[in-house]
Amino acid sequence: GFAKVDHHRKKRQGFPEIVFGEGKSAEQIISIIKALRGKGNNVLVTRISKDKANLVQRVCAEFMYYDIAEILLWKNEENAKPDNLKGYINILCAGTSDLKVAEEAAITAEALGCNVNRIYDVGVAGIHRLFDHYEEIQQATVSVVVAGMEGALPSVIGGIVSHPVIAVPTSIGYGANFHGLSALLTMLNSCASGISVVNIDNGFGGAYNAALIYQLAQKGAEKE
Amino acid sequence: GFAKVDHHRKKRQGFPEIVFGEGKSAEQIISIIKALRGKGNNVLVTRISKDKANLVQRVCAEFMYYDIAEILLWKNEENAKPDNLKGYINILCAGTSDLKVAEEAAITAEALGCNVNRIYDVGVAGIHRLFDHYEEIQQATVSVVVAGMEGALPSVIGGIVSHPVIAVPTSIGYGANFHGLSALLTMLNSCASGISVVNIDNGFGGAYNAALIYQLAQKGAEKE
Amino acid sequence: GFAKVDHHRKKRQGFPEIVFGEGKSAEQIISIIKALRGKGNNVLVTRISKDKANLVQRVCAEFMYYDIAEILLWKNEENAKPDNLKGYINILCAGTSDLKVAEEAAITAEALGCNVNRIYDVGVAGIHRLFDHYEEIQQATVSVVVAGMEGALPSVIGGIVSHPVIAVPTSIGYGANFHGLSALLTMLNSCASGISVVNIDNGFGGAYNAALIYQLAQKGAEKE
Amino acid sequence: GFAKVDHHRKKRQGFPEIVFGEGKSAEQIISIIKALRGKGNNVLVTRISKDKANLVQRVCAEFMYYDIAEILLWKNEENAKPDNLKGYINILCAGTSDLKVAEEAAITAEALGCNVNRIYDVGVAGIHRLFDHYEEIQQATVSVVVAGMEGALPSVIGGIVSHPVIAVPTSIGYGANFHGLSALLTMLNSCASGISVVNIDNGFGGAYNAALIYQLAQKGAEKE
Amino acid sequence: GFAKVDHHRKKRQGFPEIVFGEGKSAEQIISIIKALRGKGNNVLVTRISKDKANLVQRVCAEFMYYDIAEILLWKNEENAKPDNLKGYINILCAGTSDLKVAEEAAITAEALGCNVNRIYDVGVAGIHRLFDHYEEIQQATVSVVVAGMEGALPSVIGGIVSHPVIAVPTSIGYGANFHGLSALLTMLNSCASGISVVNIDNGFGGAYNAALIYQLAQKGAEKE
Amino acid sequence: GFAKVDHHRKKRQGFPEIVFGEGKSAEQIISIIKALRGKGNNVLVTRISKDKANLVQRVCAEFMYYDIAEILLWKNEENAKPDNLKGYINILCAGTSDLKVAEEAAITAEALGCNVNRIYDVGVAGIHRLFDHYEEIQQATVSVVVAGMEGALPSVIGGIVSHPVIAVPTSIGYGANFHGLSALLTMLNSCASGISVVNIDNGFGGAYNAALIYQLAQKGAEKE
Amino acid sequence: GFAKVDHHRKKRQGFPEIVFGEGKSAEQIISIIKALRGKGNNVLVTRISKDKANLVQRVCAEFMYYDIAEILLWKNEENAKPDNLKGYINILCAGTSDLKVAEEAAITAEALGCNVNRIYDVGVAGIHRLFDHYEEIQQATVSVVVAGMEGALPSVIGGIVSHPVIAVPTSIGYGANFHGLSALLTMLNSCASGISVVNIDNGFGGAYNAALIYQLAQKGAEKE
Amino acid sequence: GFAKVDHHRKKRQGFPEIVFGEGKSAEQIISIIKALRGKGNNVLVTRISKDKANLVQRVCAEFMYYDIAEILLWKNEENAKPDNLKGYINILCAGTSDLKVAEEAAITAEALGCNVNRIYDVGVAGIHRLFDHYEEIQQATVSVVVAGMEGALPSVIGGIVSHPVIAVPTSIGYGANFHGLSALLTMLNSCASGISVVNIDNGFGGAYNAALIYQLAQKGAEKE
Ligand SMILES: Nc1ncnc2c1ncn2[C@@H]1O[C@H](COP(=O)(O)O)[C@@H](O)[C@H]1O
Ligand SMILES: Nc1ncnc2c1ncn2[C@@H]1O[C@H](COP(=O)(O)O)[C@@H](O)[C@H]1O
Ligand SMILES: Nc1ncnc2c1ncn2[C@@H]1O[C@H](COP(=O)(O)O)[C@@H](O)[C@H]1O
Ligand SMILES: Nc1ncnc2c1ncn2[C@@H]1O[C@H](COP(=O)(O)O)[C@@H](O)[C@H]1O
Ligand SMILES: [Mg+2]
Ligand SMILES: [Mg+2]
Ligand SMILES: [Mg+2]
Ligand SMILES: [Mg+2]
Ligand SMILES: [Mg+2]
Ligand SMILES: [Mg+2]
Ligand SMILES: [Mg+2]
Ligand SMILES: [Mg+2]
Repeated sequence: GFAKVDHHRKKRQGFPEIVFGEGKSAEQIISIIKALRGKGNNVLVTRISKDKANLVQRVCAEFMYYDIAEILLWKNEENAKPDNLKGYINILCAGTSDLKVAEEAAITAEALGCNVNRIYDVGVAGIHRLFDHYEEIQQATVSVVVAGMEGALPSVIGGIVSHPVIAVPTSIGYGANFHGLSALLTMLNSCASGISVVNIDNGFGGAYNAALIYQLAQKGAEKE
Repeated sequence: GFAKVDHHRKKRQGFPEIVFGEGKSAEQIISIIKALRGKGNNVLVTRISKDKANLVQRVCAEFMYYDIAEILLWKNEENAKPDNLKGYINILCAGTSDLKVAEEAAITAEALGCNVNRIYDVGVAGIHRLFDHYEEIQQATVSVVVAGMEGALPSVIGGIVSHPVIAVPTSIGYGANFHGLSALLTMLNSCASGISVVNIDNGFGGAYNAALIYQLAQKGAEKE
Repeated sequence: GFAKVDHHRKKRQGFPEIVFGEGKSAEQIISIIKALRGKGNNVLVTRISKDKANLVQRVCAEFMYYDIAEILLWKNEENAKPDNLKGYINILCAGTSDLKVAEEAAITAEALGCNVNRIYDVGVAGIHRLFDHYEEIQQATVSVVVAGMEGALPSVIGGIVSHPVIAVPTSIGYGANFHGLSALLTMLNSCASGISVVNIDNGFGGAYNAALIYQLAQKGAEKE
Repeated sequence: GFAKVDHHRKKRQGFPEIVFGEGKSAEQIISIIKALRGKGNNVLVTRISKDKANLVQRVCAEFMYYDIAEILLWKNEENAKPDNLKGYINILCAGTSDLKVAEEAAITAEALGCNVNRIYDVGVAGIHRLFDHYEEIQQATVSVVVAGMEGALPSVIGGIVSHPVIAVPTSIGYGANFHGLSALLTMLNSCASGISVVNIDNGFGGAYNAALIYQLAQKGAEKE
Repeated sequence: GFAKVDHHRKKRQGFPEIVFGEGKSAEQIISIIKALRGKGNNVLVTRISKDKANLVQRVCAEFMYYDIAEILLWKNEENAKPDNLKGYINILCAGTSDLKVAEEAAITAEALGCNVNRIYDVGVAGIHRLFDHYEEIQQATVSVVVAGMEGALPSVIGGIVSHPVIAVPTSIGYGANFHGLSALLTMLNSCASGISVVNIDNGFGGAYNAALIYQLAQKGAEKE
Repeated sequence: GFAKVDHHRKKRQGFPEIVFGEGKSAEQIISIIKALRGKGNNVLVTRISKDKANLVQRVCAEFMYYDIAEILLWKNEENAKPDNLKGYINILCAGTSDLKVAEEAAITAEALGCNVNRIYDVGVAGIHRLFDHYEEIQQATVSVVVAGMEGALPSVIGGIVSHPVIAVPTSIGYGANFHGLSALLTMLNSCASGISVVNIDNGFGGAYNAALIYQLAQKGAEKE
Repeated sequence: GFAKVDHHRKKRQGFPEIVFGEGKSAEQIISIIKALRGKGNNVLVTRISKDKANLVQRVCAEFMYYDIAEILLWKNEENAKPDNLKGYINILCAGTSDLKVAEEAAITAEALGCNVNRIYDVGVAGIHRLFDHYEEIQQATVSVVVAGMEGALPSVIGGIVSHPVIAVPTSIGYGANFHGLSALLTMLNSCASGISVVNIDNGFGGAYNAALIYQLAQKGAEKE
Repeated sequence: GFAKVDHHRKKRQGFPEIVFGEGKSAEQIISIIKALRGKGNNVLVTRISKDKANLVQRVCAEFMYYDIAEILLWKNEENAKPDNLKGYINILCAGTSDLKVAEEAAITAEALGCNVNRIYDVGVAGIHRLFDHYEEIQQATVSVVVAGMEGALPSVIGGIVSHPVIAVPTSIGYGANFHGLSALLTMLNSCASGISVVNIDNGFGGAYNAALIYQLAQKGAEKE
């Protein structure tokens, strides 16, 4: 095949196989999916448009499509999420325009076996809305904070929580936003400690990091 | 002389004469000052180092030097600030490292005849400190908000006040801060309405804009 | 709902509710509008294309669309502009290509209850045209100056007026213009005092700042 | 005092008080330290030159200085590291020139109560050296990977471990390195999942994030 | 004609004539091809879309089109590749999305008379896949390494081979990738010696340099 | 010698020999000067600090040093400026801080045999000062316009004259000036026709272009 | 009307009226043209697409359209080019892809009443082609040199001529070309004296500057 | 020791051991040198200042220092350059200010066992000087072309030779040179085929690539 599918990865990473849909044709995705599905792993396809997903679903009807997140997901029932999960990941976002990236993060985190709690539309320009969720914000195990335009939300969240914050800049904005550069720089320069950053619009990456941390917190010290 | 001093400006602008000290020698500054002082105007010299200021003060002993702000100022007693001023300009800053720029703004605003209220060290990473000043923040006529690193403070302030906010990015930071570019972009992209921005480290410019607004509010509609 | 509409804002800001139309569907806009209209506030929708606006108008026929400004506006008759307004906001622009941004500013300022005076096509490359409006330029309460390409107009205006100038860079130009970066930097580096800057193409933001200042000048010192 | 020391933070964050030494005078640092020391917290001063540290040590002799890391640290004996810690944080770096940042990370992580394991001089240009440490690399709880020049090390590490990786770009390099921009972009664009990034040269921030994760893994699910 | 076709070049460069298809119409390409074909040289047209190529093939049926590489090629049978070629050029790439550029390199190198060996989909995030090809990688005469996103592959290859490496950054990626800038900077800053770089997406240029080196190795010292 | 001095150039260019002093030692400059002087040409050394110039003058006492311009010049009396020159070059600058670059231009133009007229300190923020020189500005043969900060002066001049304008951006400014980038972009994007631009701080280059034009105007159509 | 047409300009500038077509509708252009034509001036419309030009020509049939240059031109027969013109402007370009910009320059220069000589496809990568035109290149009055990609042609031309060179960078290229930035920087940094630069793709501007110089050379010293 | 010296590298690469002197103390360099010298390999230390080199020479007197190149070199007599070398590497540079980088390349190439031919001061602004060396330029096996400012030399050389060209941009220049970015972009965008590029000021890297190619040409096809 044209791509050496990496079957060792699940064992190595503790997670289902993930396909990056962008720039792949429906045919390529179907062929990759088929190879993977046989292994029994859940399969997560990110950055796949509705049209392309529909073509895939005709052949792979067991896949579910998430519109806003642009994710195509197959959950093998054998890999059901354990029901004794403790704690949760917060996914926060600043405005309605960040929804796509926030949902990419949320669906990904759920697909990686985590409890997810969404807190949307709490941008810093209306900070009172943020404080309506004060407890909920503080008590998460780890937070993914999605923000475009000036990208100031992670700094504020980072200042009120004592758990790790993964900041995801989005390309939402115009003019001197420069396609997300503004939010990216804001997050890298945050005065609040405990914030690390992923690429612009990388909701998937934000959730992946959060899920790794969440699973560590589940296992706790039993690991050694 | 080497610079055509513009005596019409005070009348035109309603303010004392201002000298930009950077890149001028003590001798040049003294010669400009002498020309201006005769007019009876207050004289404000910005961006002048302590050493250079001392040289000037030997000749012009009536000038006072402000260390942190690096400003040299002569207040002609005839131009005393009226004692029936209403309202005040807030100068806010995020951290101790922004102090130089904040003080440049504060001293300038006072020299331009305004009441000034300082609220320092209220960065967004410790947002509870900001809320200790909630009333004081809201009741100003106009605010100058100085911030370096991620520069998120103006967005938060802009969201809780309904008066104009002048945002001043500073060059404080390192790495992906790129000498203040990060804070500048943050402020230009703010989601909060009612924020406008001046050049990096331009505490003077922030205060000058605020003072123009403050004076308008003083005169009110009497003007027409 | 998907977005927590912020009903406190009018009281807090002294202005009608504003909807940022970009990236929202006609359905989303209609649903937001309906929630807001019930309150009796004027409603201003910015950055909405003609096609989208027409879809909204089918349901909300009382809204008026401004073609050049790409604004959709409902003025509740109960909120009529007082007829004793004093002074005016100047909206200046350099060339015909800046018209869209200038009109976004003008319609916004009027919607926010201000007297507006337009002075268009007065770029610095034909400076004599500017001087035909000398009196009119100087006597405004506050000015919004819109310019693309080299963006030099605010510097010239700032030098001849003694009121605050809000500079709005536009993305008009080509080559080394870099989508408005050239005009933005020009304005941030202006030698003229009393100029502050908003994001590229942000006619709305320029007008919002100007309106806050204009209203302060109306109330004058009565406020405290 | 000039800075409102935030005594609530330790409780909130679970860590000792941290002082950013850059841009503060020895006097300012001494005065902050005195205020903090009374609380019994450990105190960590980062980015403090040897000379400045010596001045502080004359007054606060109980502080220890770490040359390479440029850190000044006081460990209150009452706050000794528990001896039943499980797991460890790996600090990896690419070359000898990244040592300063790597040590800033290592000393910080230890000061925050974590077990630390250093793996230095394992850059990708000599990848066999990396494989001598294969087991050690995989078995950490979390890794901090420091790299300058092209900054490729985190991608390689991220590909062979299944725990979270915090990438720290350094400003080491010349020419098209642009003061660390090259390494920063490399890390943000990594194909390996499970990598998040902090500011250029921010060894402290890398370690702080790692320590938050390490502590979560200690407590495990007991938290809820 | 509109372009002075340079017939001296083949003799000067030792290679067939090459046409850069981008921005030329099918008509222009046909007219250039006709002029060149008469000389008996092989003709290589790069960066030509399938549609445009089809138009050309209607007139010049002896040309073959390579879909992925977007190359149109005529091999004059008189110019057949000698069958005693020694050694080979490796073309390596990181991911399936770099295929277009890698194939542009591969077809070009073959058209320039070289043995080519493809090693695709061996990105650094799954470094074990790279080591499956260890011998094959080391024994090439020269390598062309194509990579997008973080562009780290050339550094790893450069560290394990002792022959020259030509690095080709691709524009594959998103966000802080900035259209290939990230991979370009990574490659220019590589710690591994023996790496030189061509323009973003310039698979042709990478192959051209490799072919010059490969031919030198063929002739060896006989040249002088 | 270490540099092949190009004796053909004077004939080719119609001007004396020019030495770029930056990065050359006094010894290197002396040795170049000696080689050139024998030819009888005037010799112009630019970008030479006072200290270095003094060392050169000890050996070459006939050279004159211009402090502000940082130019060292020898005028061979045999090459005296003709006294029937018609017209003049205007050198304009915006502020006192642009003086160094303006003087580099003025001294260079004079050394190249042109009549020069200086109009300094006429920045756009005080545009009335510019109009005091209206006639003088319009009647030049060609103008060199030097400006830092926002660099708007060439646009205004270009709009009121019908002769060629050479714009010289300077690196004067701070913050978002980015070492002259702001002024450079302003000038390249000017709406006024008839403006071309040289490198940042390149007063020499501005004058050299102007002198070529001025000499053309002298010869007029006699040339062919 | 929407734009204050500036009838004084011809007298001031010595040239016909020029309309910048980009961003204007056919209707707007027609209305401007009608106002201008009545004056008897030649009219030059630049940056107008074939489709838009056709719409204009239906109403203004006396206008001629230049396909490659995308220029629409009306030459009033009363303003015929004098037949005793001396000298010529060279328009040089590097490759066939720069043709559009070169032709914009050539047609403009002719419309401004100059003799024009085209020397196309003489890029530095095949420098022998350049030398076939050696005499022709040196004997021009002024040259406009258009180049994309690396933009090196003006440096080479500037080194062999002693008349002024106007360099026009084009946006032709890909990858690290950054839309013409590469060629622009090359030209601004040229080691050859006597080169000045206009905006990327600004063929019009290049020709306008050249025409001003050409006319000066015509009038020669008669002017004063 | 603090750095794991890589003794396998010589065998792997066919070259002596190389130490990057920048950022290492004299003590560190001495300790590394001692470890390496015992192996009998030649030792090359790059980027070492005269002062630091002197300190090293006190202990390691057999090392020779090259002033301009800032290289410290020990040639073990047992590793003498074979006297039957065929062909040579050309090192070309544009101006006297590029000498440091050109010499770093020349000394490095010699230390790597190659014949080297220097052709200096042949910048494109005086292209006739280049043609004095036409034969010599064409007959090299491989060329290293060093250039600052506009960096156009590699394009011209690439056009007249049919062997590989390694282009080395230097940081020489000012203003819009941006520390070598201008020359770097020029070289990456060259229209001439057969050019690849290394980092700004990386004379060492340019020579290293050239030497790898030169050695391949020596061995020729015997290799397989
Ligand atoms: N939205 C995303 N953004 C960035 N990386 C992703 C995304 N989705 C998947 N990936 C990564 O892409 C890999 C799969 O790439 P591929 O083999 O090209 O399908 C996964 O292992 C993830 O590391
Ligand atoms: N054209 C505009 N540019 C920037 N901000 C705007 C614009 N129009 C509206 N806004 C802001 O967007 C807010 C409404 O955003 P939303 O809730 O997403 O509709 C308003 O309160 C304004 O602050
Ligand atoms: N201040 C300057 N800025 C730019 N180029 C200059 C300057 N002064 C002299 N030059 C150019 O440098 C050349 C001499 O360079 P060099 O041979 O290095 O002394 C002259 O012919 C001029 O073209
Ligand atoms: N001037 C130079 N520029 C870039 N890389 C160099 C230079 N000199 C040496 N190197 C590289 O640095 C390596 C040695 O680095 P180090 O182990 O830090 O001394 C060598 O193997 C070369 O690859
Ligand atoms: Mg926190
Ligand atoms: Mg507000
Ligand atoms: Mg003003
Ligand atoms: Mg991993
Ligand atoms: Mg190697
Ligand atoms: Mg003009
Ligand atoms: Mg010349
Ligand atoms: Mg060649």
